[in-house]
Amino acid sequence: MKAAIFRGGDIVVDTVPAPVPAQGQVLVKTLACGICGSDLHAAKHAHRMVEVTRRIPGRVPMDLSRDIVFGHEFCCEVIDYGPNTDKRLKPGTRVCSMPVMMEADGPKGMGYSNTYVGGYAEQMLLSAPLMLEVPNGLPTEHAALTEPLAVGVHAVEKANLKGDETPLVVGCGPVGLAVIAALRLKNLRPIVAADFSPKRRELAATMGADVVIDPAKEDPYAKLAADKRAVIFECVGVPGLIQQVFERAPRDARIVVAGVCMESDRIEPMFGIMKELNVQFVLGYTPDEFARSLRLLAEGAVDAPSLITAKVGLDGVKTAFEELGNPERHTKILVEPWR
Amino acid sequence: MKAAIFRGGDIVVDTVPAPVPAQGQVLVKTLACGICGSDLHAAKHAHRMVEVTRRIPGRVPMDLSRDIVFGHEFCCEVIDYGPNTDKRLKPGTRVCSMPVMMEADGPKGMGYSNTYVGGYAEQMLLSAPLMLEVPNGLPTEHAALTEPLAVGVHAVEKANLKGDETPLVVGCGPVGLAVIAALRLKNLRPIVAADFSPKRRELAATMGADVVIDPAKEDPYAKLAADKRAVIFECVGVPGLIQQVFERAPRDARIVVAGVCMESDRIEPMFGIMKELNVQFVLGYTPDEFARSLRLLAEGAVDAPSLITAKVGLDGVKTAFEELGNPERHTKILVEPWR
Repeated sequence: MKAAIFRGGDIVVDTVPAPVPAQGQVLVKTLACGICGSDLHAAKHAHRMVEVTRRIPGRVPMDLSRDIVFGHEFCCEVIDYGPNTDKRLKPGTRVCSMPVMMEADGPKGMGYSNTYVGGYAEQMLLSAPLMLEVPNGLPTEHAALTEPLAVGVHAVEKANLKGDETPLVVGCGPVGLAVIAALRLKNLRPIVAADFSPKRRELAATMGADVVIDPAKEDPYAKLAADKRAVIFECVGVPGLIQQVFERAPRDARIVVAGVCMESDRIEPMFGIMKELNVQFVLGYTPDEFARSLRLLAEGAVDAPSLITAKVGLDGVKTAFEELGNPERHTKILVEPWR
Repeated sequence: MKAAIFRGGDIVVDTVPAPVPAQGQVLVKTLACGICGSDLHAAKHAHRMVEVTRRIPGRVPMDLSRDIVFGHEFCCEVIDYGPNTDKRLKPGTRVCSMPVMMEADGPKGMGYSNTYVGGYAEQMLLSAPLMLEVPNGLPTEHAALTEPLAVGVHAVEKANLKGDETPLVVGCGPVGLAVIAALRLKNLRPIVAADFSPKRRELAATMGADVVIDPAKEDPYAKLAADKRAVIFECVGVPGLIQQVFERAPRDARIVVAGVCMESDRIEPMFGIMKELNVQFVLGYTPDEFARSLRLLAEGAVDAPSLITAKVGLDGVKTAFEELGNPERHTKILVEPWR
């Protein structure tokens, strides 16, 4: 089958073996799969990602000498089941799933794996128990936003905001926008959001930010209610950002690091110490948060369509990776491997 | 009056003007003042400390071109009061106080200040409302341990451990030992503690650690209950330590940074992200925690005497700073300026 493959540090379109479902697995057709910032980071910092993963017990690093197919924000259609597998949803049913394959010795990731291809391929395998049916009437392209929305929902759950706290979202890329949507859904307002890009600021307002700031012109921290504890969502994920927040954050602030910085970073602990800052790193979501995100999209609770700025076939993935660097042009590009 | 002065990057004994109490202030004789690791750090990284302090709103940095008298862990004796000041405690009364002077525009620190001398001087000024009488029968040298104990009490309060969490104390210098004492007082056990120094490990056991580990020989993280969330107290405060904890900490661990690292530091956020770590930086204590620490010492709830390894006069401060680098020889050295 055809796939956009991460091979030798580049994205190339070629064929890979069509997957064959084993027991507990489902063969699906990939209908749509969003390109995530983490995919761009992974392509750029693949060796670092491998090195860090190797040092974390229980994680299997990618073998970069072999083909990898990225893509973990997908909506698919059931084709067939592996042997001795409960055929819960009939072929043709549209489904979403966490990008995780249940194996006997624990869950394995897909999308950054040599074993399980991600969504930039015509077909893929899902774990039968994890499949969620896409509710009737929810367009496929919106269902594919379940995963990135779940990232925001999880970050906000982990932040566990109290009523006497005031949120600031630093960076309004897909992660920041999902955080804004999740804050708004829980009515944790006013939401202050900051981004240098006019387009991203516009989307921040669309997703529910109450105060949207261009940090080149105004100080977003000055917009926080002075009588409330600040909860700052770092949604950029590049070196230097955590220290920048350390320097700007008010005393006692909580910082939720939702941006995925794969590089080494420099901090000055004294800022953290003198202000008694709290830093919560977050990643992923729970199965419940994932399922809830799909329901929220189906209920139209989130303005999903505004986030999608382009759709490409497998041939367009490489160019899409390049173009996603421009925040004025793109927010979420969907890959439709059947195109 | 005589003082051990931080001057031109060195500690010298010389005279400084005797302090004169203003309204709300108390003139006291310094009976004993502990040397804190932060004093050693401040002497070594004075310029960095100034630079960081300058960048935090509301903090007044030291002017290193002028004399500074360190010392913020003191027990004193009331001599006299400033004009129009409530003479609550009669001259001769022994007192402790947070190292803070209340001024009209807010509290000001003492000990790292050009305005208020710290405890390495024959006399100093205290803020009348903050003075706490030393309970009868509590030796002066133990009362001087109130401040470092309060640091541990505060770190443990901030950590806010639940019953399903298991503490690990990394580094058993004065901060780590105070954390161990505070954990034990709240019965948050079993307490695992790690230090390379045999002497410090011995003190860790004395202060209440249940499992004491030499990290050169055993893995302290392996001693944590696998079914409980780890709460790791970083009580070393040198560059690289936070990253070391990031790499070793189990998933979902909470890290309480009680060590005061004044230098720039390097972290790899990916470890924090992939394990969803939480980092709480802590500093100081509340007035209530300070008062409680004095009461705990008076009640004999903490084995304070074991921590004191030497007493010196002002002439001995410079040498004491040097000798505190050897964890086998010293834990807490008290300065007795009247000697």
